[in-house]
Amino acid sequence: MRLARYRLRSDAPDASSVGLVIGGNGSWTVHPFADGSDLISLLALEFEAREELADAAAAGEGYAAADVVLLPPVYPVAMRDFLTFEAHVDGMEKGHGNPGAPDEWYDAPVFLFMAPHAVCGAFDEIAYPPDTERLDFELEIAAIVCKDARNVTPEEAKGVIGGYCVMNDWSARDVQGKEMKLKLGPSKGKDFATTIGPWVVTADELESHRDADGFLDLGMSVSVNDEVVGSDRSANMGWSFEQLVSHASRASWVKAGEVLASGTCASGSLAESWGRTGRLTPPPLQVGDVVSMTIEHLGTISNRIVASNEVVPQTVPARRRVPEGV
Amino acid sequence: MRLARYRLRSDAPDASSVGLVIGGNGSWTVHPFADGSDLISLLALEFEAREELADAAAAGEGYAAADVVLLPPVYPVAMRDFLTFEAHVDGMEKGHGNPGAPDEWYDAPVFLFMAPHAVCGAFDEIAYPPDTERLDFELEIAAIVCKDARNVTPEEAKGVIGGYCVMNDWSARDVQGKEMKLKLGPSKGKDFATTIGPWVVTADELESHRDADGFLDLGMSVSVNDEVVGSDRSANMGWSFEQLVSHASRASWVKAGEVLASGTCASGSLAESWGRTGRLTPPPLQVGDVVSMTIEHLGTISNRIVASNEVVPQTVPARRRVPEGV
Repeated sequence: MRLARYRLRSDAPDASSVGLVIGGNGSWTVHPFADGSDLISLLALEFEAREELADAAAAGEGYAAADVVLLPPVYPVAMRDFLTFEAHVDGMEKGHGNPGAPDEWYDAPVFLFMAPHAVCGAFDEIAYPPDTERLDFELEIAAIVCKDARNVTPEEAKGVIGGYCVMNDWSARDVQGKEMKLKLGPSKGKDFATTIGPWVVTADELESHRDADGFLDLGMSVSVNDEVVGSDRSANMGWSFEQLVSHASRASWVKAGEVLASGTCASGSLAESWGRTGRLTPPPLQVGDVVSMTIEHLGTISNRIVASNEVVPQTVPARRRVPEGV
Repeated sequence: MRLARYRLRSDAPDASSVGLVIGGNGSWTVHPFADGSDLISLLALEFEAREELADAAAAGEGYAAADVVLLPPVYPVAMRDFLTFEAHVDGMEKGHGNPGAPDEWYDAPVFLFMAPHAVCGAFDEIAYPPDTERLDFELEIAAIVCKDARNVTPEEAKGVIGGYCVMNDWSARDVQGKEMKLKLGPSKGKDFATTIGPWVVTADELESHRDADGFLDLGMSVSVNDEVVGSDRSANMGWSFEQLVSHASRASWVKAGEVLASGTCASGSLAESWGRTGRLTPPPLQVGDVVSMTIEHLGTISNRIVASNEVVPQTVPARRRVPEGV
């Protein structure tokens, strides 16, 4: 089952409805659930109860793709981004002159909390952010949490994950690089946009797409202006999503409405190539570029980069307390 | 004006009310606002409108401190922690064998997003978290955002900050150290508890406590088991809170209900001493220790560390895709 958050093109810009998606890529329709339906609550329902509501929605009128704007399926109550693809870590570390993934990477899945208010829809335009000459994408898969969890085992975490979607964690690499010198964040390097969508595919739909260890195994690819520039499989994650939820929940809350993302897959960003080769090839993203990401059974997101029309306040340097040179 | 979120000791554990605090430390009472009042909305009101509601609350019955449990004044929609105290950065960097704060620190205020669901109340017990032998505190001051903001100047940011409170960003230094090897986060090193409280002091109350550059200038101190172990002044921040809000809002949303924290002040954590001296003196926190933090005009928070009774799931190492040694 695919659940979308959308508004009609004729709706007010802040309108938001939840619907069932029927049909294939390009020729789908979206059928509204009853007014006031909540996407996370639908995900948390038992299979049969959700099917019943979906049947009722499917029986009602649907809207054609051309008539709707897909919104982020979730406005997250928190958003964690992990770092689970070994080959990506390896490439990024080599870019920093290190031999490869450090031992600490293998011990436990590390993550950061992301800007939860930066999420945008599957086909939204992305304003080119300030201060960067190295705009990049990150191809990721994201799990949508539908129940509160604390100290859950990976087995218990299965019931906590409502579904999955495609994610593009847009990244300003030069901004990010400066921030990471302070060993925190990154923050401004990633807080301007994160695409999630096009909709949530419920976890039950994907049960048959797991490998022998229970890892989701879906093909992932990213193209810039219709040219494929990276691809991988989700089964190359170092941990399953259930293991990630379990780890995040250790002596801590993971709450309904959170998004947990895989981190970048191998070749799922330009910076990884830059790191491996020492050259800016392919070049950083520019205004006019269209970045499209497809994950098998989850669908496609596609965003065009446009010039920003925002007036951004100046960055202010620190007021020094320790005199320079001391 | 001081605004608290609280429940009566006789209330259900998930009850929550908003009240006006009257009186001095130790002998205060809390007077409920009308049912359904929202603390962030109260902060966002114009001065006169808030005063009127406060007068009405003050005229009503109050509850004695002994009868209430103070809750976190905000359950944040997002939480950013900055790194604004130069002397703290200097100490931490020296602990890692570096010469001091790097140039990048001076250029722009860096921050990380924190676990928003880890907030706890001013006098809550803190369960000793798993996997650490280096439990530490961080003395910080936090601003409560009461209006949505994007691309605001520092001047405009004044109206966005509703008030301030004391914050203890509890930190498991050994867990955090491993995570920071991956240059992300930290995540599990800080996601088990963050104390904020005891209440929010509205920004208007603090206008007379600014230095010549407009920086809030409040004395800050932290004690362990009644012995003062660190103190500083908030005016030693490298940026004012208005500058932090402005920076965070650059091409990004800062939303009502967010918390923006200063980062650790100088001598506001044990790790800074450990870094400067190379010895674990004072020793890491233990079960039974009481950490108390006071900021002038904001009040005192005080938390006792207790043994955890949680059964925590095991951490699982990565499933390797790149064979070892390649």
